Parts: sequence; C-alpha cells; structure tokens
Amino acid sequence: MSYARTTIARIAGYTPGEQPGDQPIIKLNTNENPYPPAGKVGEVLRSFPFERLRLYSEPSAQMVRVAASAVYGIPAEQILCGNGSDDLLTIALRSFVDQGAALAYTDPSYSLYPVLADLQGAIRHPVPLDEDFELPENAAELAGDATLFLLARPNAPTGNSFPMARVKKLCQDFSGVVWIDEAYADFAEDHCLGLVSRFPNVVVSRTFSKSYSLAGLRLGLAFAQGGLIQEMEKVKDSYNVDMLTQFLGKAALEEHAVMLANVQKIQQTRQWTREKLLELGCQVLPSQANFLFVKTVRPATEVFAGLRQHGYLVRYFNLPRVSEYIRVTIGRPDDMAGFIACLSKIGC
Amino acid sequence: MSYARTTIARIAGYTPGEQPGDQPIIKLNTNENPYPPAGKVGEVLRSFPFERLRLYSEPSAQMVRVAASAVYGIPAEQILCGNGSDDLLTIALRSFVDQGAALAYTDPSYSLYPVLADLQGAIRHPVPLDEDFELPENAAELAGDATLFLLARPNAPTGNSFPMARVKKLCQDFSGVVWIDEAYADFAEDHCLGLVSRFPNVVVSRTFSKSYSLAGLRLGLAFAQGGLIQEMEKVKDSYNVDMLTQFLGKAALEEHAVMLANVQKIQQTRQWTREKLLELGCQVLPSQANFLFVKTVRPATEVFAGLRQHGYLVRYFNLPRVSEYIRVTIGRPDDMAGFIACLSKIGC
Repeated sequence: MSYARTTIARIAGYTPGEQPGDQPIIKLNTNENPYPPAGKVGEVLRSFPFERLRLYSEPSAQMVRVAASAVYGIPAEQILCGNGSDDLLTIALRSFVDQGAALAYTDPSYSLYPVLADLQGAIRHPVPLDEDFELPENAAELAGDATLFLLARPNAPTGNSFPMARVKKLCQDFSGVVWIDEAYADFAEDHCLGLVSRFPNVVVSRTFSKSYSLAGLRLGLAFAQGGLIQEMEKVKDSYNVDMLTQFLGKAALEEHAVMLANVQKIQQTRQWTREKLLELGCQVLPSQANFLFVKTVRPATEVFAGLRQHGYLVRYFNLPRVSEYIRVTIGRPDDMAGFIACLSKIGC
Repeated sequence: MSYARTTIARIAGYTPGEQPGDQPIIKLNTNENPYPPAGKVGEVLRSFPFERLRLYSEPSAQMVRVAASAVYGIPAEQILCGNGSDDLLTIALRSFVDQGAALAYTDPSYSLYPVLADLQGAIRHPVPLDEDFELPENAAELAGDATLFLLARPNAPTGNSFPMARVKKLCQDFSGVVWIDEAYADFAEDHCLGLVSRFPNVVVSRTFSKSYSLAGLRLGLAFAQGGLIQEMEKVKDSYNVDMLTQFLGKAALEEHAVMLANVQKIQQTRQWTREKLLELGCQVLPSQANFLFVKTVRPATEVFAGLRQHGYLVRYFNLPRVSEYIRVTIGRPDDMAGFIACLSKIGC
C-alpha cells in the first residue's frame, strides 16, 4: 500500500540528465554553457556579507525584477521570478490546470512536460509536430479542451524555432494559457517577448541556466500581463528565490553583455559543429539553440554508448520519433573538435 | 474572467511577514535568528569558484543529505532536501492530497497550512486545539478522512510543544501521513526524529531558517522512511536546491556547534523576556520556540501599532482565538531590553 496519491504512486517521475560529478568527462548532455558567468557575479559572491543570510529574502525578488525590467523593457509588475524555470512550470500547472483537466504540449518536446501533467493528476494532450518537427497550423484545435499549452521555442530536443505566425495563431485561437518556454531564445534569431503585451493569455519564460551560464544558481523569469502574474504569485512559495540568487541574478543581468558575447561564440561553434557532422554523414536539424539534434548513421544508442566510453556524454531519449537521434550540447571549440574527432574514430 | 483554476482565483494567497528592507527597525516578526550563521558558511561562500555555477547542481543535494545524516543519525536515503521547508510542505500536499480530498492541521497553527489546502484545491479540516492550545487526545478522529495531517511541534504561533504521548497516539491512529513540522525543535526540550523509524506514515521536517540563522539560504530537510521519500522525490523539482545552498548548508551542518550555542543564548534571552513581560502584566505562554506568544492587557492591535511606531516590528494575526496576542521573536539581549523598555513606556 502507498500513502501517495494514485497519480503519484503509479508514475516514475522525471529523470534529469546525468550529473557525473568530477569525473574527467566532457559534458555535452544537459545544455549547460561552457563559458563562465559574468565576472560581476563572482565579485558580488566574494564580497557578500554572509551574516545577512540570517534574514529572509525579499519574497518577490524585486531587485531581479527591476534589473530584468531594464534589460527586457517589460514592467517589473509583469515579471515573476522562480527557483529555475522548472519552478515556474510547476507554478503554471498548479495555477492553470485542475486535477482531471488537460495539459497540452507539443510532441516531441521537453520531456518534463508530460511528467508535470502526471504530477498534477491532469490528462496529457500531446500535440504532434509535423514531419519536419514544426508546429501544426491547427495546434489550438488539436489541444482540445486543455487549459494550458506548453510550447518550447526554440524547441527541445529538436532545436528548431516554430514560425512566429503559427505561434501567434495558437495564442489567438487557444482558449487557455499559452506558455512559451524560451529557455533557449538567446541563441535564436528572434523571440516572443513582444507577444506579452498583445495577448492576455500568454506567458513567456526565460532561464539563467543556459545563456547566462548559471544553471547551478536556479533562476527563471516569467513575463505576462498583470492578471496572470497575480494568480501565479498566490501559488509560488513565499520565499522561492533565495537571497544569494537574487543578488547574483541581478549582477548577471547588469553585465548582460557578457552573456551576449558567450552566446555569439556558441552560435559560431554550433555552425562549425553542424558542418562537421554533415560531412560525417549525419543528418542535423537546423538549430536555434545551444545544442544540435543529430540523426546518426548507426543506431543512436550505439553511438551514445561509444561516445560515453571515450569520455563524451551526450543525451539520448528513448522516446517515439526521437530514438534515432542524439542531442549534443555545444561546448567550447576544443570540446567540439575532440567530439568530432572521437565520432570520426568510432563511426557515426 | 480569469485563466486561473477556480481554487486559485477565489483565494488571496499567503501573506508572509513584512520584510522592511534596510530601515532602522528591530525585526521581531518573522522568527529569524539574531546571531550570524557558522563562520564556515562565510568561508565557503568567499572561496566558492563562481565559474562552477554554469553547471547544474546535484539533483538530490546528496552532500547535504550525507552531512545531515552524520548530525541526525538517520540514513541519507531517508532524507529529502527542499528549497526551504515551505518547498517541502508544498511537495507534501502534491504527494499526499488529491484535489477534493482533505488536509488536516491543528488550529491555531502556521497560517500557511490552510492556504496550502486551498492551493491544492483540497478541503480544509482544521482540528481545534483545546483551551490550553494543546493537541486533543482524539486528534486523529477529528481529522476525519484527511489524507495528510500537518502538525507543528513546537507549534506556531503559540510556542508550546504538544505532549509526546499525544503525538504518538496521532501517528498510530491516523490512517494517512502525519507531517511533524519541527521548524522550532532546536529551541525545544525534545523532538520527534525518533518517530521516523517507528512509523511508516511519519515525516519530520526541519528548516535552516531559524536555529541555523540561514533564512535567506532556503534549505529544509524532511526525514521519513524510504517509501515516503521516494514518492516525494518524484514530485520535487529536479534541481530544487541550488549549488550554493548545498555547499553552504553542508558547512552549517559541519559546524553544528555554532547553532547549538546560538540556541542556548536565545533560550536564556527567552526566559529573561518572558519574566519581564509577566512583570508588566501580560500573559505569556510557556515557549519551546524562538518566540513568545503574548496576550497583552490592551488590545493587541494597539500594542502592535505602538511598538511599530517606536521601531519594533512584531507579528499580529487577525485570526480567531489568537487576535488578542502578539508574537514576539527573541532577538539579542539588547534588542529585548529595548523592546521591554518600549513596552513599559507605551503600556502593554
């Protein structure tokens, strides 16, 4: 017998990408940034008066909201801070999806989405992407009576960015909340922040884990009109963003240019890596993110295992439609040169 | 019209105690510790290689679990770490209470508990404490068909610690999970960690916010048998405890003696403050926590306002049975001497 809710007891939960600790391994599996965060983050950290930690942090992370407002040109009242964007996604489910109601999400996408539906006791409404992994024109219709639609743009693990016109059409046609998860938007050519002022049912979320090189900090932002923010503020834990995260997140935003420069380097390495993979005979989807989605010549599981044996950790998803691919995070140029050399040796 | 679930749209949410920022005020309102955390916390902070923040933190906060295991003598597999114990309480609701099911909690108690019921869309089952604010003998019966019982021991805002025999009886008689919230246990004469190995339905939680002087860090621990921990691990966000919190929490546990010494000072100041309040004519409940629950002679709202005007911020709850009381956090001896002097002047 289990004390847990049936919806919890019967599921396995989400499995995050492997964290190998301090082993000598090149980690290309969880889309971390190979470059350090802005130097100001380190300065603020070193000079932080640790005695201050005896006090609670400011509940709304106001200093982060103000700094983010300056960077993104959206009023602070339209910004919600989370303990990573995972926290924000959990808040989304708890705010907008009743137990027994439905959650829509594109398929394939971030493998956490269906798990979030399970945890809430909600029905999964996957909306299949078309053969090119693009958002179908009638996505709102396919979402049925779902009350929340989770959409990653650029999408993971595929790396493509759905056409803006289709995203706008979804926002217009869908009767519930459309949540555009822009975890990778800094690596893309455009973004959806402009939709926030246009649609009262749109939330756009960002994370500091990828472009800002701060996965270990746990900080995410959600942008939406005031009405949605106010409902989500009721749901979030009172002190969900700790004091150090607030100060360091603010520092990262203030030295925003460092992030932009890191992104540019990653975009260049992405281009180089993609060309090399194509030369090796792999199929590589065009990517707007900090990773490549690669259809290998040999079975993907074999390539995954071979790479691992040689110290290169990538991500493999044993899920429909994506089981012939590996997802490769873009690291530093020398990481990727080593990766390509390894792949040439073991065969892809 | 609201996009939020009905259960969210109709409620106001939880209001945390005021955080006045850097104003010249003596903060006796949110049960923070007046003493700094262990010096090792500061050392680890200052020497932390900030570049490492580009990587995700270890999902289970294993280093904290191992350090906590050494301090509390409970295996690491029976420990779950949270982003503060608020995160753990949210995980508890999501793990054990279906929407439409019931949450039991003593009344009065931590005012977050009924809000957590609302957020989950659960029914509130308050179990009234008796006239001395003690746990009734038939608490399990009064909880009805609730699937989770939240019990704070020592209780907040009353400060008393329910008799161990009654708590054990509740654990035995209640068919669901009994969650013993021991946020204040380090200030008390005994604790309930021993119940974890005896009862498969018991969870005991601790926080670093009070005795460890780390409210701004956001770290909480839940202790329970493996079955319960495994279910809750499915529900928690993958990276709910950030990297810095893991390293600093570990340091605090390793310098556990500093916490114990701070607790002892607070217990002495608590005794002194209680005697002075009794001399002034107030009624003061015996406290096992780092605060006193004080029935004032004049209306409590007036005393609260008078203290605030003179720079002393305490907590007032406009709720049934406790609206004639103020809750006063124990600060440093000079804070409390000033507080008593102020109270003598304005009248209590």
